[in-house]
Amino acid sequence: MDKEPLHIIKIGGAVIENPEMKQAFLDGFVALKGKKILIHGGGRVATEIGSKLGLIANMVEGRRVTDDATIDLVTMVYGGLVNKQMVAQLQALGENAIGLTGADANLITSAKRPIRDGVDYGWVGDPKAVNDEFAKSLIEVGSIPVIAPLTHDGNGHILNTNADTMAGTMASAMSTHYDVNLILTFELDGVMKDVNDPKSLITNFEQSFFNEMKVTGAIHSGMIPKLENAFKALESGVGTVRICKYDQIHTNNGSFLQV
Amino acid sequence: MDKEPLHIIKIGGAVIENPEMKQAFLDGFVALKGKKILIHGGGRVATEIGSKLGLIANMVEGRRVTDDATIDLVTMVYGGLVNKQMVAQLQALGENAIGLTGADANLITSAKRPIRDGVDYGWVGDPKAVNDEFAKSLIEVGSIPVIAPLTHDGNGHILNTNADTMAGTMASAMSTHYDVNLILTFELDGVMKDVNDPKSLITNFEQSFFNEMKVTGAIHSGMIPKLENAFKALESGVGTVRICKYDQIHTNNGSFLQV
Repeated sequence: MDKEPLHIIKIGGAVIENPEMKQAFLDGFVALKGKKILIHGGGRVATEIGSKLGLIANMVEGRRVTDDATIDLVTMVYGGLVNKQMVAQLQALGENAIGLTGADANLITSAKRPIRDGVDYGWVGDPKAVNDEFAKSLIEVGSIPVIAPLTHDGNGHILNTNADTMAGTMASAMSTHYDVNLILTFELDGVMKDVNDPKSLITNFEQSFFNEMKVTGAIHSGMIPKLENAFKALESGVGTVRICKYDQIHTNNGSFLQV
Repeated sequence: MDKEPLHIIKIGGAVIENPEMKQAFLDGFVALKGKKILIHGGGRVATEIGSKLGLIANMVEGRRVTDDATIDLVTMVYGGLVNKQMVAQLQALGENAIGLTGADANLITSAKRPIRDGVDYGWVGDPKAVNDEFAKSLIEVGSIPVIAPLTHDGNGHILNTNADTMAGTMASAMSTHYDVNLILTFELDGVMKDVNDPKSLITNFEQSFFNEMKVTGAIHSGMIPKLENAFKALESGVGTVRICKYDQIHTNNGSFLQV
């Protein structure tokens, strides 16, 4: 039997902190029909509020080092401010959003990242299990899970988790039940051959070409883990993976990944 | 047919900010068997984090005046920090907690409080509707809703809502489906004839006696709305209402309200 489609959309912090961009994203989200899950970031908002609290963001290779004060900060900002504002806005648009973190209903358990190459990321978690049955039960009653990039270790600790990783993990787990359409959004039209040339969009982005671009250095360092994660999702059984501009999720524009 | 019991427990900010008291509360919560909902405050934590952000709490008759910066603060603190830490701790204790605000799944809609007697409370909401069917569906699959004192107006705004009021509202709404046992916890043993005499606990607290105490001024101003709200819940069909110490929810200690 064919599986029903499920859209899993990831939205990042740059769009979230800009009211016009956020509105354009939300309009596209409403226009995208069918079952869906939204996974959001919020790093820029956390950095801004953290600086008001006297916390300086400490980033290593694009990942936030998360000490005691920082896990409290991101728990507040991702799980509270960003998540609940988004839920209230979606409810006003007639979407039955329900805001969650990985701790809620044991949705995503993760393992605290061990110290690697001398880097201790602190309260950062790498996902290891998804309560896909619970997510399915929500989706089946018409709810739209809106998930903040936080997980838990099962021992009472919240862990900071990369939103792209969360999206890939959820997409893989939900592909047991649905034909998953993973959409990663950002500020550009998609994957560009040349970021300075808007006409250089790569519509069908082959994994072999990605490997070439990594060798030639044509892809920016921050995009590499995002794309590796996206290709991994595709290989694990996710139906389609598309990278597109934040206001194009209801269209077919952007870059479709191909393995 | 007899309705199944449902415990609705309210826990306040003083207990939440004290790790030992919080642990004692959680241990009692785990020991309390059956279906349950937890509703928490967090005002003291919000005041503390607010002061670090340069926000001075502005209280009128025990209620926080909630301007733009303050609604963001309480959304972060109640919906994020306090709620998610509690959920992670309960999950570690084997309780299948799911953290929610009134905005999530449209759980509690409220009306922004109009300016009364010259006081503009700002982004404060008085509950008007409960999605009791959704709360029931969560409870029936074994989830334990953990609810932060935030609601929404249906137009995209989060509203700050008194946790005692939330507890009374949820108790009344859920009494359509369950035999509700509402437990309001605080730092004392229950309602005391004399707060300085630990032996003056009133085990059966009659509404007529409450009215007398209001007249004589024997009850502290902050307790009056809490108790009025609790008696209202009892009158609206809630099975039992008990006021007890935060570490006594699994016992029968405290004051049982009687109409």
